[in-house]
Amino acid sequence: MTISLYQASVPALIRGLTQLNVVLEKGAAFAESKNIDPQVLCNDRLFPDMLPLARQINIATDNAKGFPARMAGQQPPRYEDTETTFAELIARINKTIVFLETFKPGDIDGKEDKVVSFKLGPTEVTFNGLDYLTKFLLPNFYFHVSMAYAILRHNGVELGKRDYLGS
Amino acid sequence: MTISLYQASVPALIRGLTQLNVVLEKGAAFAESKNIDPQVLCNDRLFPDMLPLARQINIATDNAKGFPARMAGQQPPRYEDTETTFAELIARINKTIVFLETFKPGDIDGKEDKVVSFKLGPTEVTFNGLDYLTKFLLPNFYFHVSMAYAILRHNGVELGKRDYLGS
Repeated sequence: MTISLYQASVPALIRGLTQLNVVLEKGAAFAESKNIDPQVLCNDRLFPDMLPLARQINIATDNAKGFPARMAGQQPPRYEDTETTFAELIARINKTIVFLETFKPGDIDGKEDKVVSFKLGPTEVTFNGLDYLTKFLLPNFYFHVSMAYAILRHNGVELGKRDYLGS
Repeated sequence: MTISLYQASVPALIRGLTQLNVVLEKGAAFAESKNIDPQVLCNDRLFPDMLPLARQINIATDNAKGFPARMAGQQPPRYEDTETTFAELIARINKTIVFLETFKPGDIDGKEDKVVSFKLGPTEVTFNGLDYLTKFLLPNFYFHVSMAYAILRHNGVELGKRDYLGS
């Protein structure tokens, strides 16, 4: 037996995004309970030249929608990156989950050797499917989800590993 | 074509740990350049009840050594969790990489349905190989590597995404 490119990607991305919503919902509830302007948390960052919470969510979702789309030979949908509130960030995540759910294993499986190129900021990057999954998508996706967790945790939101991993 | 459990795990773990060493080396150099006691960084955390940097490294390496060992039917080697310096943490990571390099694809591949149980703190958890990889190992490993990055980044260590991802 072996595992498939779909099995190793789409269900894990949906799971990670579902848990990211749990983390953001706890952030929103924390802001409300403490009378903190939620924008303060959405704009917070761990260091002045690091990206703020909202951008971490943008990039996590961009990673998630980009992989199955490119593997299936589609252009990933473009989102405008205008979210500034917890509700808007959660809506973006839900939109991404709905998009991921449109993919079937047959759209992606067997594309381990398929080569795709895309722009990453100013840089053009090229990967085959397996390298895209293991060297870029998964480490990068989990990085940005973890940074969102870290920013909220650092602000005192009561998060535990289970909120991130799911049960 | 499909991908194998080995391809999706061991090379990614070795890569992640190699980059974690890059991150820690930058932390050690930063402490030296600023005349900061390196222990301050190794003991730092993002919130008072969160785990400090040294423990993030312990858990990342525990995740990395546990998966291939259990899939191959071995007990993972036990490390004593006594590291307190950058040099000791880097040595632990290097020891883990050497251990990972002992596995061959044939030790792990085809074990997607193999069920393993192990203790996670006080809790016994049970996974088949595919769920262990996608629902626990990878999200958890990247979480702890990312937290190590976040703690050092928050302290002003000049880290970029490339230090984490590799080139």
